[in-house]
Amino acid sequence: MATSHETVTIPARKGKAAHAKKGQIIRVINTHGEQVVDTWAFSAADTSEFMSMEHSRAMMGKIIPAVGDSLVTNHRRPILTVVEDTTPGIHDTLLAACDRYRYELLGVKGHHDNCTDNLTAAMKEVGGKLPETPCPLNLFMNIPVRPDHRVEFQPPTSKPGQYVALRAEMDLIIAFSACPQDMVPVNGAACTPTEAHFTIA
Amino acid sequence: MATSHETVTIPARKGKAAHAKKGQIIRVINTHGEQVVDTWAFSAADTSEFMSMEHSRAMMGKIIPAVGDSLVTNHRRPILTVVEDTTPGIHDTLLAACDRYRYELLGVKGHHDNCTDNLTAAMKEVGGKLPETPCPLNLFMNIPVRPDHRVEFQPPTSKPGQYVALRAEMDLIIAFSACPQDMVPVNGAACTPTEAHFTIA
Repeated sequence: MATSHETVTIPARKGKAAHAKKGQIIRVINTHGEQVVDTWAFSAADTSEFMSMEHSRAMMGKIIPAVGDSLVTNHRRPILTVVEDTTPGIHDTLLAACDRYRYELLGVKGHHDNCTDNLTAAMKEVGGKLPETPCPLNLFMNIPVRPDHRVEFQPPTSKPGQYVALRAEMDLIIAFSACPQDMVPVNGAACTPTEAHFTIA
Repeated sequence: MATSHETVTIPARKGKAAHAKKGQIIRVINTHGEQVVDTWAFSAADTSEFMSMEHSRAMMGKIIPAVGDSLVTNHRRPILTVVEDTTPGIHDTLLAACDRYRYELLGVKGHHDNCTDNLTAAMKEVGGKLPETPCPLNLFMNIPVRPDHRVEFQPPTSKPGQYVALRAEMDLIIAFSACPQDMVPVNGAACTPTEAHFTIA
């Protein structure tokens, strides 16, 4: 359980989860600068209440959270508030976590790491029951929406060491996946997934 | 089970579900012109596979489906294809179905009809197991996204009798809710929810 000031690694292409208490600050660091970090949060008291992008967009009145905005649960209660963001502020709430179906459609034969399975493994590691796979908060992911309603897949705008700090608004389990997407340049033009880090303090 | 040419009513403020076979055309009619119709689809073979907005946005490369676009499931398989749209083409994939929490936050004391409970009731009526509450395809809903990432709640742009026709890409259960939102002008400036209709042929 990562509740000290220790820096925890989200290994490249893999997931990691941790418990956080209400009021703690979770800092998610884009260590190498261009890594998308899929992020989920679940109420520790009952993981069937979890951070929901579709509820958050409605309650925030926007598609990308900024400092001062609270992400809410599927019960419309604040669960994480953005308290600091040293990146240019570009994140994504629109796209599903990658999954085995995504890679199969991209032509992969056999196993490919994916954020959906990473979430399952990370939750299991901390003993959290996973009720479903919510749409993640894709930190650092750059998916511009054009006036004609198209979305584009662009490399992140963040730089090495930049971070987002999130305040836990309830006791929760937070889960991350360092996105293993290496076939589309969402993790930088080089398509090289890297590790990322977080602290909880 | 509505699999004939009969016109089925989605009562004002309520839900309705039906089975459709692969290849059938589901026509969703905005009878009075300004009614949002929350729409869900579930694989008849296994309702844990269902239409997913976050997967659909990724696969379509856009946030609003148009004629020719397929909505996909959480397994990234096409489930509904837009084959005709006589409206100006404005629909929403971003916002959660309204729920009791939404109305509680708007100050409602006691019961208020809501799309989430309507989905539950409609699925029960057709004997479909509801695995979770997916983000709906909000037909006719007008939620523009501004360049600064804000979303706005605007009245529908559709006119009475305009419709969207969707082809079933697998045997499925389709569920609708004529959104009972009467406190925010998403169902027209008059905030008066109305019935809508559908056919399956």
